[in-house]
Amino acid sequence: MERDILFRLKIPRRPGALGTVAAEIGRAGALIGEIRSLRIGRDFNVREMSVVVSGEPQMVEVVANLRSLAGVEIVSIDDRALRRHEGGKIRTVSRVRCETLADLRDLYTPGVARVCLAIKDDPTLARKYTSVGASVAIVTNGTRVLGLGDIGPLASLPVMEGKSVLYDRFAGLSGVPLLCRSKDPATVVETVAEVASGFGGIHLEDIRVPDCFAIERALEERLDIPVMHDDQHGTAVVALAAILCACRSAGVALADSVVGVVGLGAAGTGIATLVMAQGARKVLGCDRDEGARRMLAERGGEPLADLDALMARAEVVIAVTGSPGLLRPSMVRPGSVILALSNPVPEILPDAALAAGARFAADGTTVNNALAYPGIFRGALAVRASRVNGPMKLAAARAIADAAEEGEIVPYPLDPSVHLSVARAVARAAVASGSARERGVDVDAALPPLPDRG
Amino acid sequence: MERDILFRLKIPRRPGALGTVAAEIGRAGALIGEIRSLRIGRDFNVREMSVVVSGEPQMVEVVANLRSLAGVEIVSIDDRALRRHEGGKIRTVSRVRCETLADLRDLYTPGVARVCLAIKDDPTLARKYTSVGASVAIVTNGTRVLGLGDIGPLASLPVMEGKSVLYDRFAGLSGVPLLCRSKDPATVVETVAEVASGFGGIHLEDIRVPDCFAIERALEERLDIPVMHDDQHGTAVVALAAILCACRSAGVALADSVVGVVGLGAAGTGIATLVMAQGARKVLGCDRDEGARRMLAERGGEPLADLDALMARAEVVIAVTGSPGLLRPSMVRPGSVILALSNPVPEILPDAALAAGARFAADGTTVNNALAYPGIFRGALAVRASRVNGPMKLAAARAIADAAEEGEIVPYPLDPSVHLSVARAVARAAVASGSARERGVDVDAALPPLPDRG
Repeated sequence: MERDILFRLKIPRRPGALGTVAAEIGRAGALIGEIRSLRIGRDFNVREMSVVVSGEPQMVEVVANLRSLAGVEIVSIDDRALRRHEGGKIRTVSRVRCETLADLRDLYTPGVARVCLAIKDDPTLARKYTSVGASVAIVTNGTRVLGLGDIGPLASLPVMEGKSVLYDRFAGLSGVPLLCRSKDPATVVETVAEVASGFGGIHLEDIRVPDCFAIERALEERLDIPVMHDDQHGTAVVALAAILCACRSAGVALADSVVGVVGLGAAGTGIATLVMAQGARKVLGCDRDEGARRMLAERGGEPLADLDALMARAEVVIAVTGSPGLLRPSMVRPGSVILALSNPVPEILPDAALAAGARFAADGTTVNNALAYPGIFRGALAVRASRVNGPMKLAAARAIADAAEEGEIVPYPLDPSVHLSVARAVARAAVASGSARERGVDVDAALPPLPDRG
Repeated sequence: MERDILFRLKIPRRPGALGTVAAEIGRAGALIGEIRSLRIGRDFNVREMSVVVSGEPQMVEVVANLRSLAGVEIVSIDDRALRRHEGGKIRTVSRVRCETLADLRDLYTPGVARVCLAIKDDPTLARKYTSVGASVAIVTNGTRVLGLGDIGPLASLPVMEGKSVLYDRFAGLSGVPLLCRSKDPATVVETVAEVASGFGGIHLEDIRVPDCFAIERALEERLDIPVMHDDQHGTAVVALAAILCACRSAGVALADSVVGVVGLGAAGTGIATLVMAQGARKVLGCDRDEGARRMLAERGGEPLADLDALMARAEVVIAVTGSPGLLRPSMVRPGSVILALSNPVPEILPDAALAAGARFAADGTTVNNALAYPGIFRGALAVRASRVNGPMKLAAARAIADAAEEGEIVPYPLDPSVHLSVARAVARAAVASGSARERGVDVDAALPPLPDRG
């Protein structure tokens, strides 16, 4: 597994020494990232070097190469991601000054009592006087975390905190991890319904198939706030944006195309559903699991058990299987558009697909679902939408696609303006589709501003 | 009800004009707080004046007096507490920089996967790599909020956010409000148990009697993290601190005294229990409710149905009834210590109690339970205590009492050093009493530092 390693190295202070070190790291095939000087001495400097290694064997080789250098000493070796997680990634903080007894009187007793009574008399004031309208519960039971499977809720917490970091940075929302112990969908639904009044929206994350479908549906029926399973819809929105960009680049009209979705897990099912909503002529889907194929049929797609049959007919192919190399070059239909989105290794490498006759091909390296959910929830919460419906998801996908520059398959995910565009588009779609309970809202001003970066 | 009002006034710009305005406000009997200049014009200034009014009639009088002044214009009138609540009081934020794709790789995918796997292999690493060890769920179902009664969970949210503000400011902890819809104690217990793995501790708040006792007991049995009902124990800790200070001032030894607790709700029951643990010779308690009296007997106190009988025997009296003026001067035992803690109006005014022969008397104006819970949870979490036991509460009360200066009944609640002293004392007591799972921890360094003030 590819990792970013932080080396602290003591290096002789003379011209050429750093070059020798860098050369030895490169000789092992590893890539050097940032280099910082931690200490400048008379004879030695201490440098911190960030190195990307492809896996354990390369790591061993880098270390051996460095040890072979006279005068160079490895002070410490750290996993950069682990180190950056120390102390946790999020924190609940006060937005208000609390320094004097007058502050305490306003924010705590006795002042708070008047705020409580105001909300009791008019519950919609909770949106004005509390943080509820700008908060999203990030709910998981840890049954399908990244590609790691059922690792349980606690071990999944770093993912939820990562989602929360992006909610803060790109949507100005409070993302609050909520770890459910139970694997039973009904219990998860009951638990979330029990505490939902404290949140403006419910983000479901890393819940296994098919439980994620049942949980999302039940919560949408029971709650009057937006509920969204990100692995399904967030991923689908970004995938649709990538498809729109790909079709634009290839000069293909999606509406006239036969689309094939390879792999009908949470992501594939979401993609198939959204592509149908976007108006594709025909959506084929293929998966080994019969239940997954049946669900596609219920949603109006055409399920196929045979991958070759799908590849022969689909003009636009989206693969989300997690199986590296699943698509052989011989399967590629001439002139087709192929998006092989599994990470880190795609179902077919873009160059191989192009060589086999594809008109356009891309992998999922840059297709990050972080592009969708922050703006979707910001837009939905700004207009107090009662749910995240199809038109809102389509609007999000189009806004993301519109933000991509020529040659990009999706825009740069760290650009805050993308997320704000998504929020505005989603809010407009919520109003137009009747999901919004507030109209005429200034989406940029309705919620807390984005934090200063850095 | 006493309120802080913010007046924005347009006042002629000439010497004496502000004095006239201030005099008119004073003539109505209202007190002036801060004055800010919002605009300085050629002929007029706009000032924002904070005014404490005793209630609606005084408010009407202040407005009438101001309107009587030629050249003075009331621009706006706001409730200061309501205004300061706008946008909510808390926010979940990122503790880490997220600006580059390298940041995204470390904090989100793919780096986060290694953190997840590390925690899966060793769950205690969650404390190191996530925010779980520094977070407290603030749980309520809104059935007994302040003196307002059963106003429901949403209307109670401002109180929970207020608790969270102080967790941030005084303990460096993330206080996460969790609103439970159900009034059924068993459902609250199930819900909290279901999501507890995401938190380092459980703070129960504003839950009605006797449900609060059952919920706390059940959660303590089921969870291995600290659980504390603040209205009961936080209030008891601060009350015990006040009693210790009062006894010190009065030259009375608590251990040799007969203590009487008037009112056996959550607070009174907690106080009686803690005073017994502190070693008082005899603890009497009185309440109209038979169930409350029975609970006191089960805990080793002597219940009385008759208030006069209690007042005749108790050498130290603590009243927490919410009934203004309940204690008549004729009830005061000569030489007794009397703490009448109900707010805003005590059971007996200190001057009246002293005139009737009390050796020492105080009311609850300064006895704020904000003094206890932040430090208690910081101390408990720092050493990974499995619960908040009696010795930890006693240690907190003594640390608070020790921090009070001569003449104070409790210390100033906005002094961060008090809360850090409480945390250290609680951590030591947790280690000494066997509740701690970490020993030799530097309490000040084990958790996030306190934020910069302001």
